[in-house]
Amino acid sequence: MEHTEIGVVHTSITRADPAAVEALSAYGVATVHEAMGRVGLMRPYLRPVYPTARVCGTAVTVLLQPGDNWMLHVAAEQIQDGDVVVAACTTESEDGFFGELLATSFRARGARGLIIDGGVRDVADLERMDFPVFSRAVNAKGTVKATLGSVNVPVVCANALVRPGDVVIGDIDGVVVVPRERAAEVAEASRAREANEEAKRAQFRAGELGLDMYDMRGPLAELGLRYVD
Amino acid sequence: MEHTEIGVVHTSITRADPAAVEALSAYGVATVHEAMGRVGLMRPYLRPVYPTARVCGTAVTVLLQPGDNWMLHVAAEQIQDGDVVVAACTTESEDGFFGELLATSFRARGARGLIIDGGVRDVADLERMDFPVFSRAVNAKGTVKATLGSVNVPVVCANALVRPGDVVIGDIDGVVVVPRERAAEVAEASRAREANEEAKRAQFRAGELGLDMYDMRGPLAELGLRYVD
Amino acid sequence: MEHTEIGVVHTSITRADPAAVEALSAYGVATVHEAMGRVGLMRPYLRPVYPTARVCGTAVTVLLQPGDNWMLHVAAEQIQDGDVVVAACTTESEDGFFGELLATSFRARGARGLIIDGGVRDVADLERMDFPVFSRAVNAKGTVKATLGSVNVPVVCANALVRPGDVVIGDIDGVVVVPRERAAEVAEASRAREANEEAKRAQFRAGELGLDMYDMRGPLAELGLRYVD
Amino acid sequence: MEHTEIGVVHTSITRADPAAVEALSAYGVATVHEAMGRVGLMRPYLRPVYPTARVCGTAVTVLLQPGDNWMLHVAAEQIQDGDVVVAACTTESEDGFFGELLATSFRARGARGLIIDGGVRDVADLERMDFPVFSRAVNAKGTVKATLGSVNVPVVCANALVRPGDVVIGDIDGVVVVPRERAAEVAEASRAREANEEAKRAQFRAGELGLDMYDMRGPLAELGLRYVD
Amino acid sequence: MEHTEIGVVHTSITRADPAAVEALSAYGVATVHEAMGRVGLMRPYLRPVYPTARVCGTAVTVLLQPGDNWMLHVAAEQIQDGDVVVAACTTESEDGFFGELLATSFRARGARGLIIDGGVRDVADLERMDFPVFSRAVNAKGTVKATLGSVNVPVVCANALVRPGDVVIGDIDGVVVVPRERAAEVAEASRAREANEEAKRAQFRAGELGLDMYDMRGPLAELGLRYVD
Amino acid sequence: MEHTEIGVVHTSITRADPAAVEALSAYGVATVHEAMGRVGLMRPYLRPVYPTARVCGTAVTVLLQPGDNWMLHVAAEQIQDGDVVVAACTTESEDGFFGELLATSFRARGARGLIIDGGVRDVADLERMDFPVFSRAVNAKGTVKATLGSVNVPVVCANALVRPGDVVIGDIDGVVVVPRERAAEVAEASRAREANEEAKRAQFRAGELGLDMYDMRGPLAELGLRYVD
Repeated sequence: MEHTEIGVVHTSITRADPAAVEALSAYGVATVHEAMGRVGLMRPYLRPVYPTARVCGTAVTVLLQPGDNWMLHVAAEQIQDGDVVVAACTTESEDGFFGELLATSFRARGARGLIIDGGVRDVADLERMDFPVFSRAVNAKGTVKATLGSVNVPVVCANALVRPGDVVIGDIDGVVVVPRERAAEVAEASRAREANEEAKRAQFRAGELGLDMYDMRGPLAELGLRYVD
Repeated sequence: MEHTEIGVVHTSITRADPAAVEALSAYGVATVHEAMGRVGLMRPYLRPVYPTARVCGTAVTVLLQPGDNWMLHVAAEQIQDGDVVVAACTTESEDGFFGELLATSFRARGARGLIIDGGVRDVADLERMDFPVFSRAVNAKGTVKATLGSVNVPVVCANALVRPGDVVIGDIDGVVVVPRERAAEVAEASRAREANEEAKRAQFRAGELGLDMYDMRGPLAELGLRYVD
Repeated sequence: MEHTEIGVVHTSITRADPAAVEALSAYGVATVHEAMGRVGLMRPYLRPVYPTARVCGTAVTVLLQPGDNWMLHVAAEQIQDGDVVVAACTTESEDGFFGELLATSFRARGARGLIIDGGVRDVADLERMDFPVFSRAVNAKGTVKATLGSVNVPVVCANALVRPGDVVIGDIDGVVVVPRERAAEVAEASRAREANEEAKRAQFRAGELGLDMYDMRGPLAELGLRYVD
Repeated sequence: MEHTEIGVVHTSITRADPAAVEALSAYGVATVHEAMGRVGLMRPYLRPVYPTARVCGTAVTVLLQPGDNWMLHVAAEQIQDGDVVVAACTTESEDGFFGELLATSFRARGARGLIIDGGVRDVADLERMDFPVFSRAVNAKGTVKATLGSVNVPVVCANALVRPGDVVIGDIDGVVVVPRERAAEVAEASRAREANEEAKRAQFRAGELGLDMYDMRGPLAELGLRYVD
Repeated sequence: MEHTEIGVVHTSITRADPAAVEALSAYGVATVHEAMGRVGLMRPYLRPVYPTARVCGTAVTVLLQPGDNWMLHVAAEQIQDGDVVVAACTTESEDGFFGELLATSFRARGARGLIIDGGVRDVADLERMDFPVFSRAVNAKGTVKATLGSVNVPVVCANALVRPGDVVIGDIDGVVVVPRERAAEVAEASRAREANEEAKRAQFRAGELGLDMYDMRGPLAELGLRYVD
Repeated sequence: MEHTEIGVVHTSITRADPAAVEALSAYGVATVHEAMGRVGLMRPYLRPVYPTARVCGTAVTVLLQPGDNWMLHVAAEQIQDGDVVVAACTTESEDGFFGELLATSFRARGARGLIIDGGVRDVADLERMDFPVFSRAVNAKGTVKATLGSVNVPVVCANALVRPGDVVIGDIDGVVVVPRERAAEVAEASRAREANEEAKRAQFRAGELGLDMYDMRGPLAELGLRYVD
């Protein structure tokens, strides 16, 4: 893995297999996170800017400087159909790096959405366009274009490592990153998990208890759980 | 009152009178809180996971360990029709302790909703099911089943004391706890308060001022309020 | 400018020109903030209590004491058609200073909405009334009427200076203050900015890049941005 | 247990046994919390106002209103030698409820310190006096004396239930509450715990591993921990 | 008052009377804030970077852009003996705008300290130099020099309005602003307040109660405070 | 780079060159961060548990589960002389994962300190031992030993990627990570930077302005900075 550098744009990246991305797009963030073995989740302060926002695609990564969205324009050129822009920042910054004009540009270039460890604005427009954005803040404060960052370097976004071409999935439960090499495997594990849950759901609906379904009574007693009338 | 203990499940609890619970369910949290004399409110960081979530019922209490939802399965067995599960945690933890499968189980056992000083996931499903949940976070991060907590002990949830069988009411304004012995009295005080407000509402709508309706001009002048042109 | 004083109500204030307020009401907060030269924005912790809340009007200012809403009643008498009440607090306080009854009173007196660096309650009612409120919290906790503050003094609300009669505009992107003397000029600058954006939007939609539209390639190269295959 | 009420002062309270309080005062908060079975800890946002602050005593409880310290004056009269004032608030409020003058008064009445879910001021003086205070904020903002709270009712302070007469212990690791009935038992358990730790300390110092001392290798292997060269 | 503008440096400012500043420097922040009538306090998130930091002087104001400390260099030229630099930011930014080199420069130009609604670094050096700084964060992250702000315009810093030449006072209790016109009057009121407190201190030390000293028993009884044995 | 996995311990790691680590240990975090090109800084919420804490060494990484410190015991066996344990967590957890006993063990095994994205306790003891710890919280709450994490996998700690064997440096300004391959180069750049600063320091001390030393007047004028008398 290359180190995180400032001032570089990688124009050739390896994207996850499109079929695996397509397969992953059928599952929610909680399911995928479980299927991966509970790694890769971004911190929960990233929230969708409208409740029905949902996205799945391959990452074009951006490293922003605080209060400066120049690199989002640089990133626009690197977007291909099916990408999701993932923007980290060298520091905590909640300014409005992104709004409706950039969303129009990103969509025209093929982007499916944006994950940003920063603020965004024009969120009524973003909802109207149904352009899914996951951000740490809504903020009308605009940004400058003065300092270099990078595009398509590995970044840490909301405490998760994202490499260019990794799969990112966002919905109302949060945002998860699947390393591109694991995309197919995680999609299959997600499928298996959902199939397994369907059976459990029926049992729960019928009033069965997790205590019995998962054979918990023994282990609980062993640890000393006492029932008192 | 028994002390908060770890590793115990109380299977017999005294629930508030059902008629009083039913009466209380007609009022909003702000009204009930006022009617109680302004005690019993949980901290406002507890928020409904969807805007129309509303709940009123008798508490089955749970004491969770961080990142561990085992005791929610233990609690499921103790739920009766009309209960609301109230889950406190021994520390601050925003993991996703609860999701759609447990909601299915809780509903099947008779629960009306969940108040949790922690995180939850599958919130799109919870809204679709209209299963009201009030939580401190939305978080896809799952939990383990490894450490004992307790069920139906007194707990402090979001800075409010809740005993098993107390009434808990949640709506978009927050969550309030009514001690089970006071349920009928508080329902009556809520009714009186609402009746009184209806008259004031008409006066306000007609343009009357609180300054006059509540005879505030004298006290304000006495404290030295000056009007300057 | 008079200093912020406690215990005074100014009954004569100079409001921004109604035509300029009307003109400004056509633009979003992000646009107006840019048109002003990026000053006057309140901190982004102020949020609308329902997503479609939107307001534009002239400020009647209030300085509250923590947990005390007495001055909102005093302010009600000073409201004229087209005003927006802007309530600051002498300290950080998230209690529910305002609810449906005061909203009824404010509306009857001509108010278009409320901006408050504090908490509010009855937010389901506020949405039903479509009375726009921007607050730092939703909180059922009520307030007392015991201590003097002021009305129509200059206040600092969410880190922005607001003088009586200034224009305040709120939407889902935040809240911005336009000094009353600058209202017409800022409205015109907002109009010009929106006109300019319409052309850019079409270019972006056609797939043009900001890199080219804004001639960024030269400056980026000069700062040393490297493209790596 | 009586309910939390507003407007009442209990003048007779049952304090924990002085010998047990004395015994507990030898142990740190972390030790006592473990010895109690890991309950009773206040939230960690309560911090000592100077690093060496340390306190152990019996609780005189206070329920404050936001921005109002009247009840601290009422509480002063109820203080006996060896008491610690524990002040909760009906809402989150970080104003400076307490300073050097009240510290002088409290000390003169026999108080050993203050635990307050609010702010304090004059902290340089408090350190000079070595009057230990644990608070959620340092804040020069003063408070009024206008609204009733209560003294010596059960309160929830920083998410922990405290009844009058319970033992509270504070040091740089936090604040813990020991129910008065459990004081002697918890002191004994603390002593046993410390004795046990002394032996472990020597082993650790000699380079022994917790893996071996606690027989962890088997359970880890059973759960599937893999060592990779 | 001029409006807050971007891109301007005012080279002539009116500073508070030096004798009044000198007089004010004898009092703590809590005392001055009370003497002013409880206005002018900055939000308590501003903290000294070392516990004994203390400052009093006349404000040279700076409006910073996020992550950009250029204007601090511009401000250095405007500093006169006895000034304190007060740096606000157009948005919330916790980067390290200031360190030991700039402190050396500021001190050489006559500055007594810095109040900054942002982050600083080299804090061990600042303590060694005894250069008092009050900031919202400690952060090693450096800043760029790319975008204009302003010097000696009115700014809002940590929610308090500061005009060039106003007096700012900082100590461990916080930071307060005294409008330059009020400096002498507030110094006198501070003196009177401290004199008054000395007498009270003696009474408290002798065990007298605030309840009696301030004649609180009547008003408390009138509001209904009940004493219960 | 291997992916972050749960349940694995890597026993052979490549540590940064000891001479480079030794060289780096001479510089502060702010200097090293600048010398690296402003990448690799952890979020500033990590703070030393006592003000003089300072550490520099090679990382033994740990991935913790919330409220569970089992992997710290596993990590102890992997420590070599000169290592610093860097503990990330799969979620946000502020429990007290670490205290004086584990510090005794870590020191006995050769560790120089601990960086932990979690809470710690016994901080008075840690200061007495001068065992440097950088944490996000101080918290007396203990942890369990129930769930697997990993040791010596790449982790993201406080938003920075850390691989086993990388250099971590902590002081009162924060914590920075130097990739092991860059250690020598960054040490040399740090040296050069400090040499350069010494000259500037003398100029600043003599009253010279950054405006002149860095030739800023031209660029400022070009951007339109106006000086107004």
